[in-house]
Amino acid sequence: MLELGGETLILTHDAMLAGTHFLPDQDPADLAWKLVATNLSDLAAKGAEPLGVLLGYQLGPDDARFAEGLAAVLAHYQVPLLGGDTVAGTGPQALGLTALGRATHRPVPGRDGVRAGDALWLTGPVGGAMLGLEALKGAPGDPLPYTRPVALLAEGRALAPQATAMMDVSDGLLLDALRMARASGVTLAIDGAAVPLACPPERRAEALRWGEDYQLLFTLPAGATAPVPAHCIGTAMPAGSAPLLLDDEPLGEASHLGYLHG
Amino acid sequence: MLELGGETLILTHDAMLAGTHFLPDQDPADLAWKLVATNLSDLAAKGAEPLGVLLGYQLGPDDARFAEGLAAVLAHYQVPLLGGDTVAGTGPQALGLTALGRATHRPVPGRDGVRAGDALWLTGPVGGAMLGLEALKGAPGDPLPYTRPVALLAEGRALAPQATAMMDVSDGLLLDALRMARASGVTLAIDGAAVPLACPPERRAEALRWGEDYQLLFTLPAGATAPVPAHCIGTAMPAGSAPLLLDDEPLGEASHLGYLHG
Repeated sequence: MLELGGETLILTHDAMLAGTHFLPDQDPADLAWKLVATNLSDLAAKGAEPLGVLLGYQLGPDDARFAEGLAAVLAHYQVPLLGGDTVAGTGPQALGLTALGRATHRPVPGRDGVRAGDALWLTGPVGGAMLGLEALKGAPGDPLPYTRPVALLAEGRALAPQATAMMDVSDGLLLDALRMARASGVTLAIDGAAVPLACPPERRAEALRWGEDYQLLFTLPAGATAPVPAHCIGTAMPAGSAPLLLDDEPLGEASHLGYLHG
Repeated sequence: MLELGGETLILTHDAMLAGTHFLPDQDPADLAWKLVATNLSDLAAKGAEPLGVLLGYQLGPDDARFAEGLAAVLAHYQVPLLGGDTVAGTGPQALGLTALGRATHRPVPGRDGVRAGDALWLTGPVGGAMLGLEALKGAPGDPLPYTRPVALLAEGRALAPQATAMMDVSDGLLLDALRMARASGVTLAIDGAAVPLACPPERRAEALRWGEDYQLLFTLPAGATAPVPAHCIGTAMPAGSAPLLLDDEPLGEASHLGYLHG
């Protein structure tokens, strides 16, 4: 974040590597989409309005197809490409994107603002990206939730004035909730059955740990109703022995809660 | 460039790959320095004051050493690290940096503002980075001009109000001058003997084509004197049959004028 000329700028940068963050044979148009949408999701979680993006692009297997996807996602979100750099290399394709936005509400919601007594909310289901990746690998189903995630920009802007804390769920609901709890110095108690799922209920435990659904996780004062469609999935309590409870069971070990990006 | 809150933001992004843009065994501290300094040089050429950088970092052979160099260059230029992303991968190390600055003078100088009659100026010698790379590979000499380039931020700010056009020389003096001539719709006539050299005079032809010295190339109205140390190396004329003349010889073929980044 950066204060400039009376505005608050929000900046985010994500890097993606072939073989690590995407399948080497994935449709380059989908990569472009995901690279932009995931950065815009970071802006959404701050209630920011996107101003533009800069792209670091290593030439890959189908640059024209990447350009198509890039044009599509930028047009979809009405975001300009402000600059970037194109390089040629021999290794796995490396992509980087910087997104720039302006805060629409100040203070900008962070992950550290939860107060004991707040209710914990989630904008929509998790588990869709998990099934999407399986579909991409050949299972029946729709790969779109994995290949073309949605940045909840309008939702983030509507929530920013009311949320005491907000973040997007990129690495898994439990892991990201743990981070929010630690940053805020509270214990978050999640009611597992209240978490909406985009997968069969028998896969709930996995879905709570799988990331890339890019829902917004936020807290509101007790009794407040969310200004956008959302599900109340838990409550914040004064910090206890564990920062995170799932159905009253303490969950403290980050390595089993979600995806730690390498 | 982006207008925001009464300010003009300048944004630049460079990507670097091991084996393509740097030697795989180069000191990681030098890589950090160069990645930041070259992006700040882009800001210098716009007369901008840096506000911060975002780093896309792929873990490499010595991350602690990279962090040392990053801290050093950010402290040297008093620029904050605003964010970024760290990833692990198996291929050649990929690095990306976004730099953000605010214009100190508007209109922001571009490469398209040269008018016939303007004088062409260069802030300092070329050829130093060429010798620096040779030194890095074992020849006698000082690698610093190659490993630790200088971003001429103060010079750029002093020049911005007076220069009709400005850019930094990253890809070779002749190639960058050609780009300036084409963008401005003029012919630039360079007096080869007037170009200051950081190498023996018998290597002048190479030095004019070698990049990475990050001098500022700019034009001033005829008769004006530069507000910073600089050398007048040519003049702008109405567009002729060739956009670039070196010692009255037309030079039109980009591929022989400098370094085209892959």
